[in-house]
Amino acid sequence: MDIEIAKYSGYCFGVKRALDIAEETLNKYKKKVNKIYTLGQIIHNRGVVEGLSKKGITVVNSEENITPGSILIVRSHGMSPVVLKRIRAKKVKIVDTTCPFVKKAQDKANFLSRSGYFVIIIGNKEHPEVIGIKEHIENNNFAVVEDIKDVKNIGKKEKIGIVVQTTQTSKKFKSIVSKILEKGKEILVENTICSTTVNRQNSTRELAKRVDVMIIVGGKNSANTTYLAEISKNCNTITYHIENYKGINLSWLRGIKKVGISGGASTPEKDILKVKKLIEKL
Amino acid sequence: MDIEIAKYSGYCFGVKRALDIAEETLNKYKKKVNKIYTLGQIIHNRGVVEGLSKKGITVVNSEENITPGSILIVRSHGMSPVVLKRIRAKKVKIVDTTCPFVKKAQDKANFLSRSGYFVIIIGNKEHPEVIGIKEHIENNNFAVVEDIKDVKNIGKKEKIGIVVQTTQTSKKFKSIVSKILEKGKEILVENTICSTTVNRQNSTRELAKRVDVMIIVGGKNSANTTYLAEISKNCNTITYHIENYKGINLSWLRGIKKVGISGGASTPEKDILKVKKLIEKL
Repeated sequence: MDIEIAKYSGYCFGVKRALDIAEETLNKYKKKVNKIYTLGQIIHNRGVVEGLSKKGITVVNSEENITPGSILIVRSHGMSPVVLKRIRAKKVKIVDTTCPFVKKAQDKANFLSRSGYFVIIIGNKEHPEVIGIKEHIENNNFAVVEDIKDVKNIGKKEKIGIVVQTTQTSKKFKSIVSKILEKGKEILVENTICSTTVNRQNSTRELAKRVDVMIIVGGKNSANTTYLAEISKNCNTITYHIENYKGINLSWLRGIKKVGISGGASTPEKDILKVKKLIEKL
Repeated sequence: MDIEIAKYSGYCFGVKRALDIAEETLNKYKKKVNKIYTLGQIIHNRGVVEGLSKKGITVVNSEENITPGSILIVRSHGMSPVVLKRIRAKKVKIVDTTCPFVKKAQDKANFLSRSGYFVIIIGNKEHPEVIGIKEHIENNNFAVVEDIKDVKNIGKKEKIGIVVQTTQTSKKFKSIVSKILEKGKEILVENTICSTTVNRQNSTRELAKRVDVMIIVGGKNSANTTYLAEISKNCNTITYHIENYKGINLSWLRGIKKVGISGGASTPEKDILKVKKLIEKL
């Protein structure tokens, strides 16, 4: 059986950077503070988060659980500046790992809003990145559009500014922007999809077209990994989305000639290689 | 036979305004100056232009033919400020009938260009309105896109600003903008299609769907009239584009139950009514 890993696959710059900062923080402060927290997972990968937890980073899901005198590592997806201000006021040291591309989307949303634009964020309503971007808008003149159908609920506006979750697909982005064009005369589009996302999506699509089965490795709660699986399915290729090698069912590969593997931005390279090794044993 | 005229049809605000200004100019200056010119047709309708010619407005096609001491009426489509400056320097009085919506597109193109955007004008390359808009851009950082295929020739840009010929269809505009989204990260879309154009297109489409034959009345060189014919054809309705009632071939209407009529922004109401009367005689 032939096995090929997508050219662009696994950790992106922003995830690598967040994990490096987390390790540095552990080395520097672990013995000096009582606790090091992240509010939500630092990246959307269970294995990585469990590893960091063993090293001393505690994941909490509510700001109330963050105790004074501790350190909060802001996750790669960013977060609300209002919540951050409240936490800082509790004498908590903040270490920010927000991905610079996410930061850019936050800043653009803030700028558009201050410039009088009604801001539309294209992205998953419940995703922490989108929630963080939204909280950078200082008024109520905004909407989150997850699906083209959501555009119907937006009235006509004088000026509309658009930003997009960094890991959305270009295809979805384009179709939603096209629909938004009906809603206003002046529309400023800030395409904040990050370039590594585009490369990863393109190389997954390219590989999916050439193989019989695609295996996408990464967190089920990872937006960008889920999109890779969707892109692969849209190539009419049998596709399985697994969190790690343990998710493989070897019956999937019986009689198959060529398998492709790709991983999301929050998937460690070793997770991808483990999947490859397991398949090679067949 | 049932005959119905589209709800929004015939002269738009900008055309009416241009013709009113032309008549005023004739009344006020005809006896005081040696010549009154337009550079190209004041509106794209042969009958109207011939009528004005009889009253004393001479159409020339080159600025060299405009003589000192005369008046130049700037056509509703607008024109190049550079050419206008040269003509003014010849001691020619300028009377401007540029449609305010076209003026807005010109100003937006100028502003976008001064603000560092690469400007894309969506429109017909040879149309005087597009040529006029183009000439309001003071550098070479622009392109005219007539067709979605033209977008291919444009390289990646940091910032793209888009304006559109006032009489383009929303459908074409949207599909071209969607393609342009691939070319830059920041795209400022100024939808300069005028609202009367949208109303006229929508009511023509609505009528075309309910009749057996559509007759579109107006200049063959009128972009907006030509689009009405295209819209009607796209409803799978048999469509004829005629300049005036003389263009009708009565054999088109044999055995037909319902006929729709629509006219472009530069089509006089009387031209539309004449077509209706001729058909009623059947």
